[in-house]
Amino acid sequence: MLERCREMLSGRDLLTTHDWTREELTAVLELAEDMQKERWSGKYFDVLKNRTFFMFFYNPSVRTRQSFECAATELGGHAQFLEPKSMRLKTAKTAGETIEDAARVMSRYAAGLGIRMLEDKVAAYGEGYKMIKEYADWADIPVSSMADDRFHPFQGLADTMGMRKHIGKDLKGKKATLVWGHGALARSWCSVQEYILMSSLYGMDVTIANPEGYDLDPEVIGWAKANCAANGQEFKVTHDQKEAYEGSNIVYSRNWMSPNAYTPDGEFLKAQEVEKALAYPQWICDEEKMKLTDNGLYIHPMPIDRGHEVTDEVASGPRSICVDVAENRLHVQKAVMAATMK
Amino acid sequence: MLERCREMLSGRDLLTTHDWTREELTAVLELAEDMQKERWSGKYFDVLKNRTFFMFFYNPSVRTRQSFECAATELGGHAQFLEPKSMRLKTAKTAGETIEDAARVMSRYAAGLGIRMLEDKVAAYGEGYKMIKEYADWADIPVSSMADDRFHPFQGLADTMGMRKHIGKDLKGKKATLVWGHGALARSWCSVQEYILMSSLYGMDVTIANPEGYDLDPEVIGWAKANCAANGQEFKVTHDQKEAYEGSNIVYSRNWMSPNAYTPDGEFLKAQEVEKALAYPQWICDEEKMKLTDNGLYIHPMPIDRGHEVTDEVASGPRSICVDVAENRLHVQKAVMAATMK
Amino acid sequence: MLERCREMLSGRDLLTTHDWTREELTAVLELAEDMQKERWSGKYFDVLKNRTFFMFFYNPSVRTRQSFECAATELGGHAQFLEPKSMRLKTAKTAGETIEDAARVMSRYAAGLGIRMLEDKVAAYGEGYKMIKEYADWADIPVSSMADDRFHPFQGLADTMGMRKHIGKDLKGKKATLVWGHGALARSWCSVQEYILMSSLYGMDVTIANPEGYDLDPEVIGWAKANCAANGQEFKVTHDQKEAYEGSNIVYSRNWMSPNAYTPDGEFLKAQEVEKALAYPQWICDEEKMKLTDNGLYIHPMPIDRGHEVTDEVASGPRSICVDVAENRLHVQKAVMAATMK
Repeated sequence: MLERCREMLSGRDLLTTHDWTREELTAVLELAEDMQKERWSGKYFDVLKNRTFFMFFYNPSVRTRQSFECAATELGGHAQFLEPKSMRLKTAKTAGETIEDAARVMSRYAAGLGIRMLEDKVAAYGEGYKMIKEYADWADIPVSSMADDRFHPFQGLADTMGMRKHIGKDLKGKKATLVWGHGALARSWCSVQEYILMSSLYGMDVTIANPEGYDLDPEVIGWAKANCAANGQEFKVTHDQKEAYEGSNIVYSRNWMSPNAYTPDGEFLKAQEVEKALAYPQWICDEEKMKLTDNGLYIHPMPIDRGHEVTDEVASGPRSICVDVAENRLHVQKAVMAATMK
Repeated sequence: MLERCREMLSGRDLLTTHDWTREELTAVLELAEDMQKERWSGKYFDVLKNRTFFMFFYNPSVRTRQSFECAATELGGHAQFLEPKSMRLKTAKTAGETIEDAARVMSRYAAGLGIRMLEDKVAAYGEGYKMIKEYADWADIPVSSMADDRFHPFQGLADTMGMRKHIGKDLKGKKATLVWGHGALARSWCSVQEYILMSSLYGMDVTIANPEGYDLDPEVIGWAKANCAANGQEFKVTHDQKEAYEGSNIVYSRNWMSPNAYTPDGEFLKAQEVEKALAYPQWICDEEKMKLTDNGLYIHPMPIDRGHEVTDEVASGPRSICVDVAENRLHVQKAVMAATMK
Repeated sequence: MLERCREMLSGRDLLTTHDWTREELTAVLELAEDMQKERWSGKYFDVLKNRTFFMFFYNPSVRTRQSFECAATELGGHAQFLEPKSMRLKTAKTAGETIEDAARVMSRYAAGLGIRMLEDKVAAYGEGYKMIKEYADWADIPVSSMADDRFHPFQGLADTMGMRKHIGKDLKGKKATLVWGHGALARSWCSVQEYILMSSLYGMDVTIANPEGYDLDPEVIGWAKANCAANGQEFKVTHDQKEAYEGSNIVYSRNWMSPNAYTPDGEFLKAQEVEKALAYPQWICDEEKMKLTDNGLYIHPMPIDRGHEVTDEVASGPRSICVDVAENRLHVQKAVMAATMK
């Protein structure tokens, strides 16, 4: 299984799941499922023996750091935790060493490089993704996005692994709901955008509900729409929560920022975004709304902003698969590392 | 030896040595002694192969981080260094992700979790311990205290391992002295409280000397008293240094804060504590006082505040076992990790 | 090859290459070359199995941290990343635990210790080196300089490994040029001083060019002069760039601070140094000057301050060996760790 993945994927970058085919993504998901089953059997203990994976965090993280460092350890390698404060590197906002120089040298030391760069570290939507792409262009080793302002491919893979377990391997025709949640966080688009890319690719019927003024990236929406069309499924964006919950098999409720989060000068208006988002207290996932679903599951990439995005009752309830999905991060990351790193 | 420890202790938390029986503690000390002897023989090289231990530092640390990270490495695993600043977690003083969510996900990634949370990170004495207990209640993996405001079980074990080597395996009837030292640090109660719990449990005669106003936790004192009574030994608290030193087999001199370190509003009065403590220059362990002992050893958990808690002459002298005890931290931590983590 | 190195070097500190003989340095370079060739063959995978190397960074670093942590991982061990902020240690500018105590305990935990301490962390030139020497005096394990205000032995070894590859193993009579570059960084003397020590030791003809007021450490210059004399080679310091470039086989252009960087009170005058250095825009390595050389190579320890020290054209050009030299850091560090650590 690992051999087949390596034949398909050795040396490949992973900046968004949209860059890989469904066949490639499925191969990696199956490898991840085997890695979960064989976690302590020793089967994968030496896959990255003595190899280094660089984790480069322009933004700090909870799960991502924990799960990548564990992933490397479980494959017999080591993940180095790097922060730009000690690296004097160029970003959209600071001067320093060129990405050319940094990426070329990193390629001599490590077998792979993951980068995290969210919206508050750049001057306009999309620049985080662009910078990671610049690293990928210069590096001779596989580069992956550990979340940027547009994409979060490992979260998309972990979500799908969770749906394959709790809904079934054939997701075709199941209804996936993404609803905006109010809250105090002005969250990134990366996780929810990966979710709709993956659910649409795997043949689900996709409905997004959000208040006016909270539309996501039109290009990503276009890709998801095309996926749904190719699979003969519906794709809808609505402002009506009821419509989104009705008959759903799985509900993803999460806060995200509006497209107006940046000024033309590149300032990130976090406080203003938070104030605006807090004005929609009716946008919360609760038991009453969940009753409209077809015994739907609850999914969220964590950390959860309880009381805003979702009630405690739903988040800790028996239909919540959040902790399983968080665990999946480990397995899909191990699978991608093993498949792409030499 | 490892098998027997695992049968007794697999999956167990270690928040204070007071939660474990003397039989369990002795089993772990014997395992630690074997691990010291067999350090490079390979006998224990794969015990935690590819496993992760999370070290979660609400407070930074010198020895604790070094020794835990070495311990995991020497057992073939890896210790991740986590700080709350990048984790958006709830503490007594800040909002964020719930301990429920954090602990449940950590349990999916790692084989064990150690937490450090001292008095200056909480609003009242005992809250650090309570928060670690909350993690332990939610986590499915063994949780241990890497020092909190009340307890420091690994230090207690390391002290006892040092006494077993330098005094002998039968500590019964030996006199253990704990004396307060002046200084500029307003130090925690955790190490000294573990010391009196362990020395009283192992049958030593325990004498504590401190200035008025520096009494330790009455509940812990009560447990130590009960230990001494059960072993037919004396337990004394005095303000007279001479009485404490006379005939002692081992002297532990260290600064600690007074019970008045917190305001009712939860402020930690470090500057005020330091000023108060500096007014007792006669409270220092020196050669003259050591002459009152029965050729007594000197013990301190390090880092030592030389010139305040103890003179250079004693700290670097031939009867000082501090560096050995510091080394023991490594061995007892390896033993507890190996015994409790699956 | 490793056995021979260990016989010569087991337990040895490496504070500057000047402390080792040419025979010892050559043995380590040959081991590094073999380690490069056998990087993934498994030959050196268990050399430091389960051992810890402490990396103690008083100053942060790009390459040094990355390459040392990779080096330990590739030898089967682990490098711990330590910063003084969490260590309450004594420095020239702050009070805290003594070096005696810190070094004696570290020796119980780890198999080796590397320290980095540059000019801005000390009160006068040379004090960084002295402090590392104090650690080495107290520690029972090999101590190495990961760059200080005077020396950077691993950079010197990496430079030489690069010259052996691109010029040839016999460097005798080849012309090594070191030219000062203008720029905004007020850089350390350590890398360039190691370069002239190594190139002079290996029989090269050495020419340094810098503006008036930028002379390097007279003691180090004296050692390099003596090396050249012993090898029957020339050693020159000039203010004329043309003279330095003419007929050169390899050009090292880099900024460095002047000897007046410190006030008598121990303040480091970074802003003043930068202002002064920026007044020499003609001090830049460019294609025109490189035409004066004998098809000379370009070398720099990175990160490069492009546009000040060197033009993009030269730095990214076909004669630049910078990325190879950066990679060599990994190999020479693995070789020294394997040879000195027990």
